[in-house]
Amino acid sequence: MFEPYRLVLPIVWLMSILMSPLARSQSDPATIIATGNNRGAPACSQCHGADLNGSPAAQIPGLRGQSQAYLVEQLQNFADGKRHNPLMQMVASHLDEADIHALAQYISSMPIHNLVSHRPKVPSLGKMLAEEGDPVAHIPACLSCHGPYGEGVAPYIPFVYGQPAPYLRTQLNAWHGGQRPDGFGRLMNNIALRLSPEMIESVSCYFAAFSADQKATSGCPIPVASHTDLGQEPENQVKSMQQKIIDQGQRIFDDTPANASAYAWGGLSCQNCHLDHGLRAESAPLWAAYPIYPLYRKKNSRVITFAQRMQNCFVYSLNGKAPVLGDPIMVALEAYAQHVAHGQKIGVFLPQHGYPPLSKPALVPDMQRGQQVFVQHCALCHGNNGEGRRSHLNFRVFPPLWGDDSYNWGAGMSRYGTLARFVFANMPYTAAGTLSNQQAWDVAYFVDAHERPQDPRYTESVMQTQKLYHQQTDSLYGQFISEHQLGSMPLDIHP
Amino acid sequence: MFEPYRLVLPIVWLMSILMSPLARSQSDPATIIATGNNRGAPACSQCHGADLNGSPAAQIPGLRGQSQAYLVEQLQNFADGKRHNPLMQMVASHLDEADIHALAQYISSMPIHNLVSHRPKVPSLGKMLAEEGDPVAHIPACLSCHGPYGEGVAPYIPFVYGQPAPYLRTQLNAWHGGQRPDGFGRLMNNIALRLSPEMIESVSCYFAAFSADQKATSGCPIPVASHTDLGQEPENQVKSMQQKIIDQGQRIFDDTPANASAYAWGGLSCQNCHLDHGLRAESAPLWAAYPIYPLYRKKNSRVITFAQRMQNCFVYSLNGKAPVLGDPIMVALEAYAQHVAHGQKIGVFLPQHGYPPLSKPALVPDMQRGQQVFVQHCALCHGNNGEGRRSHLNFRVFPPLWGDDSYNWGAGMSRYGTLARFVFANMPYTAAGTLSNQQAWDVAYFVDAHERPQDPRYTESVMQTQKLYHQQTDSLYGQFISEHQLGSMPLDIHP
Repeated sequence: MFEPYRLVLPIVWLMSILMSPLARSQSDPATIIATGNNRGAPACSQCHGADLNGSPAAQIPGLRGQSQAYLVEQLQNFADGKRHNPLMQMVASHLDEADIHALAQYISSMPIHNLVSHRPKVPSLGKMLAEEGDPVAHIPACLSCHGPYGEGVAPYIPFVYGQPAPYLRTQLNAWHGGQRPDGFGRLMNNIALRLSPEMIESVSCYFAAFSADQKATSGCPIPVASHTDLGQEPENQVKSMQQKIIDQGQRIFDDTPANASAYAWGGLSCQNCHLDHGLRAESAPLWAAYPIYPLYRKKNSRVITFAQRMQNCFVYSLNGKAPVLGDPIMVALEAYAQHVAHGQKIGVFLPQHGYPPLSKPALVPDMQRGQQVFVQHCALCHGNNGEGRRSHLNFRVFPPLWGDDSYNWGAGMSRYGTLARFVFANMPYTAAGTLSNQQAWDVAYFVDAHERPQDPRYTESVMQTQKLYHQQTDSLYGQFISEHQLGSMPLDIHP
Repeated sequence: MFEPYRLVLPIVWLMSILMSPLARSQSDPATIIATGNNRGAPACSQCHGADLNGSPAAQIPGLRGQSQAYLVEQLQNFADGKRHNPLMQMVASHLDEADIHALAQYISSMPIHNLVSHRPKVPSLGKMLAEEGDPVAHIPACLSCHGPYGEGVAPYIPFVYGQPAPYLRTQLNAWHGGQRPDGFGRLMNNIALRLSPEMIESVSCYFAAFSADQKATSGCPIPVASHTDLGQEPENQVKSMQQKIIDQGQRIFDDTPANASAYAWGGLSCQNCHLDHGLRAESAPLWAAYPIYPLYRKKNSRVITFAQRMQNCFVYSLNGKAPVLGDPIMVALEAYAQHVAHGQKIGVFLPQHGYPPLSKPALVPDMQRGQQVFVQHCALCHGNNGEGRRSHLNFRVFPPLWGDDSYNWGAGMSRYGTLARFVFANMPYTAAGTLSNQQAWDVAYFVDAHERPQDPRYTESVMQTQKLYHQQTDSLYGQFISEHQLGSMPLDIHP
């Protein structure tokens, strides 16, 4: 039976909170930052500075512009001790949920300033790790998840550029020692475990050097960058023409839509299938592919050159248009591949060629199980709808796995067996090996059961195209999923 | 003082020889072959057979169709003992000069028959040596001088195909031991010295297998070819598509005008600059070139791929037209180069890259001295006017060095310093190292001082083209030689 009087007290209480100046001041983020709240939380600015730029000389990070969900999570983790920091635990325990969300929203909307606009130029171990990683040690480039400047990827991957070196060093050591959880398959723990003290020191100094405040890098053993260096490209002046073309090739490889925009306008780059700049052993590395071309390829029914193989990538995996052979873009990519393959033996098949083999699963791959795997292990980076994610500076960081911006039905990845091999060997990024064989097959099946751009070889009808190109493969092209026939997108004719 | 009566006796003698039936019958070659002459020479047919096909089971060669100059030279050498053979010395000593020339002319005009029309197909050491050579041991393919079937190149290089194995074995041993002179820089002696007894045995059997008479290969340790094999390509049926493309690439490389006729219509093939199928270490081998591309190249002012480098060869060295990148001809050539470079390290410069360096000559290169070198050491193969030579089956064997069918003024070889390096390291073919530094420079200068096709980069005038492309080179383009300005040929516009 409905008893309306029972609602009176709660409503009055709620209204008193929402309307009283005291309640408002308690949750007003600007006030909390400046003076703290009336339940004992001290002012954020006391340690993080009046403009929340952090304290470069101490271990205190800048907060301005950090992503909302990340800030909420950290404050919650401080409060319940998951992220160990006695001072911040005390602070956070005096913030209620409303304070936390209001602060996070307010702080995340503050523009970041106090940054220089270029990457540190002085070569260092940290620069190498941050920008290139160390594929042999299975350390991916920091920038491959944190964005091309370390600017962070909402909602969960924080910016790191410009943070004080002592703060970064402490955090990496905490991940290394397991004192800081990341809640997502131990992604950062996995990486930090592979870092030596020298690496941690140097990479911390690298990111601190993005700060315009020189105190951010105080204590760094070498000058990571002087401000007069920035905006110039001093080392480029002595680079050979050859090296310049190789560098250009790598830029195209790493961000194809940005650097070959006439030929790739979707969300994928070469390095999305060939991880870590094409160097990672488990994901069809360039150094195992380049030496074996020209090669007879069944898909083409003829011997093709490495350049022609790359043309296929443009047409299918990038869902773009192939530059003509000899186009400067093709030459740069070939020069980069040759550089990466330096010292490999011509014509010799390495075991790392392609993706590693994967045995068949015990159970027939399943949509529902695949979706569970996706939500738990993939959505963090690839988005809840497989749409991929961009960084705070709007750079594409994680690729879309289906939809208009993903690879098309002609790509090798659209065969879920191929995708399962890739996933099992490489995903989750930095935590490869944590998915079971069955999980890899299930999630690959789930991904493949979504619509993507039409196969450029489309002929007459989906049925005919399926018959011609997909019949003996494990692609789901032409199959019905929830009454939708996959492969129904109109063939996109790009200019 | 003129005393006409002194001429009477000689004239009477000469007329008596020319007009008497006896004299005519003495020099009638058909008669000498069938019955000998009346000065004691036995019938040729007694040993060489009624149709002069030789005696397959003995060491007696076939003579039909052998080139005239070669036959004259051999009979003279037999007569004076330079070619050691007591029986033939006796025979030849009963032939006068008129007999010798008449016989040589008559026999050289007889059509060769009794041959099968295909190369032996069964793999053997001899087949490998004859067709491919052994570049590491500096043994060129027999076919590279004797023509693609061993059919001989007039005037001095005899046919060897179909000769009985015992004859060929004896001759190779005679060259090996120095008992047979060749009179041209010991070309055959040099090769035979590098042949083991097994090689001599096998290569003799290879060429004997061209004979339709199975007795020619009697004594050969293995069946070199059965007649039912010929005309089929049994091993091709199991060859991979990859191998077929590689083979096609080699055919294009070895005889470019024949196998890429739309793009090379002059007298040059790839292997004329890259000797021994592109394998010879001293002549810009493919296995040292392929691994280092893409490469910055000054001539192009940019980084170019291996395929683009080959396009340059078509335009300049072959004086043809470049196939577009991706053309099956380009792919086949690239596949062949990759095959040849198998196992080489990508990006690593080998010391064998390009032509070996050569120090400057003591004297300024000189036309007259160069001509002497040319006549003595080069004309045998390249012709008295540098026009090159074709085999008895009309295949191009030795390349033209100047004139319409040679490389043009844009080719690297048109710089006489480059040509000198090539010559010193490789020429005379099989006898490299016998020319002095000065001779190499002189003959290169001599060759370069002849007209050849226009530089395809021709701009405005010879003077302007010289200024743009030849000023800082040692090309003679634009120089006056005997009042002719080199580089005056009209720019050839081919379809």
